[in-house]
Amino acid sequence: MLVNRRSLRVEWGDCDPAGIVFYPNYLIWFDASTTRLFERTGMSLPELYRKHGSIGMPLVEIGVKFFIPSRFGDELQVESGVIEWGRSSLTVQHRFLKHSALALEGFEKRVWSVPHPDQPGRIKGAAVPQEIVALLSAPDR
Amino acid sequence: MLVNRRSLRVEWGDCDPAGIVFYPNYLIWFDASTTRLFERTGMSLPELYRKHGSIGMPLVEIGVKFFIPSRFGDELQVESGVIEWGRSSLTVQHRFLKHSALALEGFEKRVWSVPHPDQPGRIKGAAVPQEIVALLSAPDR
Amino acid sequence: MLVNRRSLRVEWGDCDPAGIVFYPNYLIWFDASTTRLFERTGMSLPELYRKHGSIGMPLVEIGVKFFIPSRFGDELQVESGVIEWGRSSLTVQHRFLKHSALALEGFEKRVWSVPHPDQPGRIKGAAVPQEIVALLSAPDR
Amino acid sequence: MLVNRRSLRVEWGDCDPAGIVFYPNYLIWFDASTTRLFERTGMSLPELYRKHGSIGMPLVEIGVKFFIPSRFGDELQVESGVIEWGRSSLTVQHRFLKHSALALEGFEKRVWSVPHPDQPGRIKGAAVPQEIVALLSAPDR
Repeated sequence: MLVNRRSLRVEWGDCDPAGIVFYPNYLIWFDASTTRLFERTGMSLPELYRKHGSIGMPLVEIGVKFFIPSRFGDELQVESGVIEWGRSSLTVQHRFLKHSALALEGFEKRVWSVPHPDQPGRIKGAAVPQEIVALLSAPDR
Repeated sequence: MLVNRRSLRVEWGDCDPAGIVFYPNYLIWFDASTTRLFERTGMSLPELYRKHGSIGMPLVEIGVKFFIPSRFGDELQVESGVIEWGRSSLTVQHRFLKHSALALEGFEKRVWSVPHPDQPGRIKGAAVPQEIVALLSAPDR
Repeated sequence: MLVNRRSLRVEWGDCDPAGIVFYPNYLIWFDASTTRLFERTGMSLPELYRKHGSIGMPLVEIGVKFFIPSRFGDELQVESGVIEWGRSSLTVQHRFLKHSALALEGFEKRVWSVPHPDQPGRIKGAAVPQEIVALLSAPDR
Repeated sequence: MLVNRRSLRVEWGDCDPAGIVFYPNYLIWFDASTTRLFERTGMSLPELYRKHGSIGMPLVEIGVKFFIPSRFGDELQVESGVIEWGRSSLTVQHRFLKHSALALEGFEKRVWSVPHPDQPGRIKGAAVPQEIVALLSAPDR
């Protein structure tokens, strides 16, 4: 599995009156981290979608476990990779590390989607292009 | 000037580690308050735009003065009205009251926009439809 | 189980370039919906915490399944209730309905926490006060 | 004037159904950019406040002019500097550049604040420490 690593800094406005990150902000970072992971294919998400006739990857499920809170000024490392490939779905795992300790861990399950062939304005799941599967399944460097 | 009034409750996640509203959230409320003001015409914003061939009202300027901070659980009253009509622009004022005291006051200057007649993909300002000006200029009830 | 019901309107700024709610916003609504549920006890969360010597209810896990996307202007009904009580934990379920159809469903698992008796600056889980359990376990009206 | 420069990438979730940045997000970036500017003194904001007995720099006014919209994937350069020092206030200017063109420009006026000497729980403006003024007024490198 290819793992994309990025760093984040917790800003003042990310935190709540308890002084810790208000949790929906972690999901904002999940979404952006998935974008970055797919860019490891060499194309941006819009380019990938256009090339493969996809309309995107709607989310069907998320789950997160929180272990250590983070505060204003903390530096977090985010590691993202696809841990499961279904027929048309894929599950991206995101792990947030603070000073090498696991602060939280979660997943986004998404469906690779294309316009429905018969019903205008609707979408349906489709097999994730092999090229993308191959690239994101490559051994981590 | 027609004034639209709405109530807001400050939620936990709207506040920062100082315990007060993180200020960009006020601008989120500005935007939604402008939506509500225009709905006083009897149509939603998308309906209004469709009817008048507009693509929307891009923002060109904002300004806000902050007088009293607000905290988790505070109830705020928002009063919104168009205080100025330009050729193609309009300026919406938003006043936030806490227990009848002015907590903040600001404006959004927007341009009523239509597709550019000659340059595909571009937009240009256009006169705000008289019907909208008339409705939002009506004396406050 | 006591169920708290509230209505939400999807605002322009809640939606992404696909025109649907950007999913972290649902979690912002989860958090505020939990606040409202606990207010059914007759006290605000800060009052409840103060009365019972608690420092709050840190989140330990969330999970959400998404069924139907929502768009600018949609009205959503949110139903929230505690579906499980652990020794010191509680699990709040949130169901979002759009025109009576289930749009998404998820949970927040939280731990009722108090200052650690021996280690200053630390916290530990504690039994949720019986009064709160009783009130939120009352049959839905 | 010392100018702090940083880069930002517009994420999917920063944009609205029109495909452009939902404007309150720019203010979130203003706030974080002010944090970074003050870190050019060699201390974090919490360290600076602690050293000088300050409780922070509450915002009293903002103003922004928007010239060019930005979209998912755009890279923005932010230039921040203090353009005016008052008795206890300071005005931070933020300029956002996209491919060297000015996309938006705005300011935050803040008041350097300390605990009120006579009224517990209240704050008052105080002169910005000379050390900070000197550092942030240094010629741009």
